[in-house]
Amino acid sequence: MKGRLEAFADGVFAIAITLLVFEIKIPPSDGALLPGLAGQWAFFAAYVASFFQIGVYWMSHHITSTYLRRVDGRLLFVNLLFLLTIAFIPFPTELLADRLSSGVEVNLAMALYGLWMLLTAVTAAVVLVVILRDDLMDKTAYLREAPAALTRRYWLGGVVYAVAVIVALVAPLVALLFYVVGPIYYGIEAARWQPTSRRAEAT
Amino acid sequence: MKGRLEAFADGVFAIAITLLVFEIKIPPSDGALLPGLAGQWAFFAAYVASFFQIGVYWMSHHITSTYLRRVDGRLLFVNLLFLLTIAFIPFPTELLADRLSSGVEVNLAMALYGLWMLLTAVTAAVVLVVILRDDLMDKTAYLREAPAALTRRYWLGGVVYAVAVIVALVAPLVALLFYVVGPIYYGIEAARWQPTSRRAEAT
Amino acid sequence: MKGRLEAFADGVFAIAITLLVFEIKIPPSDGALLPGLAGQWAFFAAYVASFFQIGVYWMSHHITSTYLRRVDGRLLFVNLLFLLTIAFIPFPTELLADRLSSGVEVNLAMALYGLWMLLTAVTAAVVLVVILRDDLMDKTAYLREAPAALTRRYWLGGVVYAVAVIVALVAPLVALLFYVVGPIYYGIEAARWQPTSRRAEAT
Amino acid sequence: MKGRLEAFADGVFAIAITLLVFEIKIPPSDGALLPGLAGQWAFFAAYVASFFQIGVYWMSHHITSTYLRRVDGRLLFVNLLFLLTIAFIPFPTELLADRLSSGVEVNLAMALYGLWMLLTAVTAAVVLVVILRDDLMDKTAYLREAPAALTRRYWLGGVVYAVAVIVALVAPLVALLFYVVGPIYYGIEAARWQPTSRRAEAT
Repeated sequence: MKGRLEAFADGVFAIAITLLVFEIKIPPSDGALLPGLAGQWAFFAAYVASFFQIGVYWMSHHITSTYLRRVDGRLLFVNLLFLLTIAFIPFPTELLADRLSSGVEVNLAMALYGLWMLLTAVTAAVVLVVILRDDLMDKTAYLREAPAALTRRYWLGGVVYAVAVIVALVAPLVALLFYVVGPIYYGIEAARWQPTSRRAEAT
Repeated sequence: MKGRLEAFADGVFAIAITLLVFEIKIPPSDGALLPGLAGQWAFFAAYVASFFQIGVYWMSHHITSTYLRRVDGRLLFVNLLFLLTIAFIPFPTELLADRLSSGVEVNLAMALYGLWMLLTAVTAAVVLVVILRDDLMDKTAYLREAPAALTRRYWLGGVVYAVAVIVALVAPLVALLFYVVGPIYYGIEAARWQPTSRRAEAT
Repeated sequence: MKGRLEAFADGVFAIAITLLVFEIKIPPSDGALLPGLAGQWAFFAAYVASFFQIGVYWMSHHITSTYLRRVDGRLLFVNLLFLLTIAFIPFPTELLADRLSSGVEVNLAMALYGLWMLLTAVTAAVVLVVILRDDLMDKTAYLREAPAALTRRYWLGGVVYAVAVIVALVAPLVALLFYVVGPIYYGIEAARWQPTSRRAEAT
Repeated sequence: MKGRLEAFADGVFAIAITLLVFEIKIPPSDGALLPGLAGQWAFFAAYVASFFQIGVYWMSHHITSTYLRRVDGRLLFVNLLFLLTIAFIPFPTELLADRLSSGVEVNLAMALYGLWMLLTAVTAAVVLVVILRDDLMDKTAYLREAPAALTRRYWLGGVVYAVAVIVALVAPLVALLFYVVGPIYYGIEAARWQPTSRRAEAT
């Protein structure tokens, strides 16, 4: 039954990640192209940040669900809450890109982006709590095989983003650097995942 | 064969639920951001209402199809009608948000939203009728395991939304409260679902 | 391996069918709502026509692929051509709705819509030819179980749409009626599909 | 476990390929329709180029993953990078169509399109390198069964697109011809794929 939970989640992840590109408008043809593209750096930075944010959540969702043994209604519901935080990401992304681009209320837009990522991290942690509390997972294999950085992310993610929100209010470009580099770092950590062959060949 | 019915349905559910966010425009940068966001409360309320509406239908579609033994052409066709009602939800959602925001013909927009949800509930009930009439489901297990509130929703959903339509015409904000709280309540009820281990581990 | 052909096709079908609703704009709030919605009848008619067009192709794709035993590169390629005709449907749909609405060059827009449906029908027939020529299907079971109207559609679909194109040039509203009623009729025919239990329970 | 990698990838491929059509606006109704459509030739050419570009990458992704035995974290991560290059294709596509249409900085827009395709080809090659280095694939069967042109594409794709970028700077229409014909040629080559029956019937 976990197949369908994955299929619906994969759909939401794939759509949110693919639609991000439609927030970047092509430069109008009445100006020079290369400066026009350079002037859109904020939109490209926001694109990369949110692409890896969503993509790395997909990676950790994939890794976690590899060890799921069954699903129950409670997991379906908290997973739905988690998918709401993922599906909504295009909104704070566009806000961040637009304000960074226009220079208006940049700190606030950066902080709101971080707040949404904080909420996403908290919701992801709640999903893991439900999985553990309802005993839905092969916990031994998960703790042995999943990269430690990934598990830590679930528990520390909230703290790290709370700090990022405060940083955003005083130094928005430092926060931007964090938003872009952070998920890529976690992606590289998650890339260490080596499931045992037996499990990997099972499906 | 039910895998493909689920895959197509999951696609439509996932796309409809993820595209809802694109109906919310970011506030223009020539005004203050926080008041701008607050001024969009109607769009956020409509977003939450329709997100959970679609999400909880996904949950009940998932739970019901867990007990499907086979599919036939009739189920494919009524399921297509049901997916039409789901795929169209972005239209009444935007109408509700826009009219609530502008204050023009609010009652009518709220009633039309409720009418569409009524149609969705009726179509969902037709799907269940076809499943039962064509004997496509392990009915005993379904009735034993599926939360009673969910089954009742199929049969009472129409009545409840018919009442909501009438309420919308006299007190649109009460109807809005119902549209937002209703699906979340059903989501929490559906979260009680506990399939027997054997079945859950089968797929 | 046919699972992935189905997953990609299901994605394209689901996205094309769900995005159709975004071609219908909500009536502006400076006019009365009900007359505004009535004035959009052309967009609703085009929506229903293309929703069932895509939906019924999904049904027949589902039914055909039930009997697939394997896939080869040739099937992947002609299936890609077929998916191009499906993915492009939103364009002639919007053209039909817009011209029907503005009353400008209605006959031509209706004929172009029919021409695209003709191309879609021809491409669907080519897919079936490849399946048969490369012997990829359990042909005996398919011919015994698939509704005759569905098989006929593959072979006659082209002829019927060629007639519709000519009708569109002289009586566009008759063609519109055909575009709306035709796919619904085929959907009802396809709903007669009764796979043998053994096959249906296999997946 | 490879099922989920495929499902997420199929989602991104299907969404990117289906959304391309929304970059083509219908001609306004205040001009003649047929000349209006003819005036949009650049948008149709760009559509066909990118549709087959994405579609043929899907075909080769499908063929390659048929021979995957297992996945690891590294494959998930480089596959995510590859999907970024696919998901971003609508941006250079719209740029190419717009500049080809307006005649402004055509060479540069054509070269940027080629540069993105070069990056996509390089990323696709990196995916194959990871698959081979981490020994995730049944290499013997892959090399025996996959069309040689497809394997060559992985290694030569970069070179060919680097040439196309230079050609674009001097003769953009020659590059356009290449962008349109190239992927179709590879699609026809990939259509030669004949998996052994045993493997093909396994899933």
